[in-house]
Amino acid sequence: MSKNKVKPSILAGFMELIPSDQILFNKMMDTIRENYERFGFLPIDTPVIEKAEVLLAKGGGETEQQIYRFTKGDSDLALRFDLTVPLARYVAQHFSELTFPFRRYHIGKVYRGEKAQRGRFREFYQCDIDIIGNGSLGIINDAEIPSIIYSTFKDLGFDSFTIKINNRKVLNGFFQWLGIKDSVETLRAIDKLEKIGLEGVVKELEKLGLDSTTIEKIMEFIQIKGSNEEKIESLKKLSVENEVFKKGVEELELVNHYVELFGVPKDNYSIDLTIARGLDYYTGTVYETFLDDYPQIGSICSGGRYDNLAEYYTNQKLPGVGISIGLTRLFYQLMEAKLIEAEESSLTKVIIIPMENCLEKAVEIGYILRENKINTQIYLEKAKMGKKFGYADKLNIPYVIIIGEEELKENKYTLRDMKTGEQFMLTLEEILSKFDAN
Amino acid sequence: MSKNKVKPSILAGFMELIPSDQILFNKMMDTIRENYERFGFLPIDTPVIEKAEVLLAKGGGETEQQIYRFTKGDSDLALRFDLTVPLARYVAQHFSELTFPFRRYHIGKVYRGEKAQRGRFREFYQCDIDIIGNGSLGIINDAEIPSIIYSTFKDLGFDSFTIKINNRKVLNGFFQWLGIKDSVETLRAIDKLEKIGLEGVVKELEKLGLDSTTIEKIMEFIQIKGSNEEKIESLKKLSVENEVFKKGVEELELVNHYVELFGVPKDNYSIDLTIARGLDYYTGTVYETFLDDYPQIGSICSGGRYDNLAEYYTNQKLPGVGISIGLTRLFYQLMEAKLIEAEESSLTKVIIIPMENCLEKAVEIGYILRENKINTQIYLEKAKMGKKFGYADKLNIPYVIIIGEEELKENKYTLRDMKTGEQFMLTLEEILSKFDAN
Repeated sequence: MSKNKVKPSILAGFMELIPSDQILFNKMMDTIRENYERFGFLPIDTPVIEKAEVLLAKGGGETEQQIYRFTKGDSDLALRFDLTVPLARYVAQHFSELTFPFRRYHIGKVYRGEKAQRGRFREFYQCDIDIIGNGSLGIINDAEIPSIIYSTFKDLGFDSFTIKINNRKVLNGFFQWLGIKDSVETLRAIDKLEKIGLEGVVKELEKLGLDSTTIEKIMEFIQIKGSNEEKIESLKKLSVENEVFKKGVEELELVNHYVELFGVPKDNYSIDLTIARGLDYYTGTVYETFLDDYPQIGSICSGGRYDNLAEYYTNQKLPGVGISIGLTRLFYQLMEAKLIEAEESSLTKVIIIPMENCLEKAVEIGYILRENKINTQIYLEKAKMGKKFGYADKLNIPYVIIIGEEELKENKYTLRDMKTGEQFMLTLEEILSKFDAN
Repeated sequence: MSKNKVKPSILAGFMELIPSDQILFNKMMDTIRENYERFGFLPIDTPVIEKAEVLLAKGGGETEQQIYRFTKGDSDLALRFDLTVPLARYVAQHFSELTFPFRRYHIGKVYRGEKAQRGRFREFYQCDIDIIGNGSLGIINDAEIPSIIYSTFKDLGFDSFTIKINNRKVLNGFFQWLGIKDSVETLRAIDKLEKIGLEGVVKELEKLGLDSTTIEKIMEFIQIKGSNEEKIESLKKLSVENEVFKKGVEELELVNHYVELFGVPKDNYSIDLTIARGLDYYTGTVYETFLDDYPQIGSICSGGRYDNLAEYYTNQKLPGVGISIGLTRLFYQLMEAKLIEAEESSLTKVIIIPMENCLEKAVEIGYILRENKINTQIYLEKAKMGKKFGYADKLNIPYVIIIGEEELKENKYTLRDMKTGEQFMLTLEEILSKFDAN
């Protein structure tokens, strides 16, 4: 490369795909969008750049460090780091123009200046739905959400996945009752269960200065097992005298009952009392979704219930429930695990190769095919036949139509199936019905 | 609003829509995308943030002033201000992985920190297609482009629009032949024709110090009229002894011939020899598209041919031709001119309102409707019937299905047409076939 050229490259932590992969990515995005629309969610689109004071109204924590923030003229600007803060601002700002419960979906890019590392992205797509109530929102909405997760991942081609459901109030109330103040450290100890075993957890809890009765209760709690119904019964038997806890169990029981009603198979959801991770604005039901055979991928769809979406912007009380799919990371992980492959994806169904003096007919046929919603390219460059077929082959275009003098005479065209190599002389009608049947 | 709230607002120059308008916007975007795919273009998606040195490799002019540029850590970053520079970088970077001619479409947001004013946006969608050749690209591609513009705007619902075509070589060669060095000032004088008339233009040209023979030739040129074929004949009759000019006329003649072949009606395109605006990287054919009844909106789709796409990044010679639709601005202008209206747009086809104890059946019916690709919401909140109907009404949802005890008994459901107010008791099969017929 000569010295005066700029090296063509992108920043670390940004995903960029070649077209065959992009087609696959877009298909996944379309499937998610179709599912969201099928359940009655409405689209919104918000600016990628917002006022820093708006995006950072809540402030604190990792957000402030990771955010892309800069000035332009007098303005203090930032790039959105999720779609939830913009939603809160949107609902507060357009409150009087919206109809509640407000069911919105939003698919867009968000930005986090994280440390670059494999599988972590600084620009990534989030695909979110949320249901926002004006003043109140029935708990039954929390039970509909898993049915949307289920429908979406089924349509994405997955069978073995589990939507794990918990309720924040259960854990919060339980800790309250036990008089535990440092719930974060306690949760951290509990989280180590798989690594260090029951005895290890006991030791960790002892280090935190908890007494033996408290530790005993915690150990009883984290060993709750069985079916969803059995787990709920076990929770009730703990005899926790705490209103928050009781409310949590009640909500969990109700959601569990209705999730089944909403058509989610038993195999695809389960109550998991140890799910506590996630953002601190969740106040009730929480969801995480795992691929059964690839737990190392982590949660592929998470969310939950929150009491008050937009408290930093408005006095309106706006409870809601929602989920998010981090599509860029999911796509990356699925490619890494070779669970999806782009090889044979093509948006273009047919390429027409006209011989000399046959362009007019090629254009005419192309027009008719497109009228019939068949994506059609005409090969317009001068090149040898081998090169033209090679072009169709490289792009995985399944059919080639060849139009030469003989074809013009007979009013039939050579259709080549690029997979099998078979060739047929067909009338336009026959070609159309062949495509129709596919 | 209490004092500790942040005012929910967005920056000036950013478009944000309420859902009913967003639905309309997305439909337009989908139509554009479908058309691009129908002609065999492949999708790409590039990062919104790139290295500043990459985006500014060409540098200079308005771009540097308008670009959003900032640092994060050690990195000098910028937001893309169009989709052409990222395409150039993309093709140079992924050259060996791409198949040429490379036909790509890209729909995405771009950023320009322009002075905020009505109808000008700092964040806007561009919808681009380009055909990139490796080393060379036949002029016939320039003739296919108008057929894609035509197809796209027809599908967007327009009839009266004109694709204006010119060739940069014609004007450049003409000026070369006349020995005009300051072509920019000369063009500026010519551009005033409609405002100041022929005599006014003559005076302006005299001010530039051009001699009378030169001015005479220019006046002859800008008064060329007639059909496309007549214009080309008139150009030939100018007897301009300049190779660039001759090449330009030849290309224009060829494009004109093939545009018709590609099925663009005569009413929808015309050669316009005064089109010279646009970016300076165009080197041959240029396009601008105008709504016949709304010329004040300006060009709604522009583009052209360039000799070398990626010269700042690679030694590969990559000629190409492409167009761009500025969708955000177009949408804004169409709304302003009341050419489009969102009122009756709904993605959701039906909302199911279950009476008490009828949720199970509602969920079951909703499931079946969705299986049949019918976007269906279930009204889950407790509310009075009037409020529920009001909800469907506000969201323009065309049908409501009511499920109560009577319906359960009869295995028929009340379907209400929200437009006409008619109600029918129908079986599920009857409902499905009714939706199918619509």
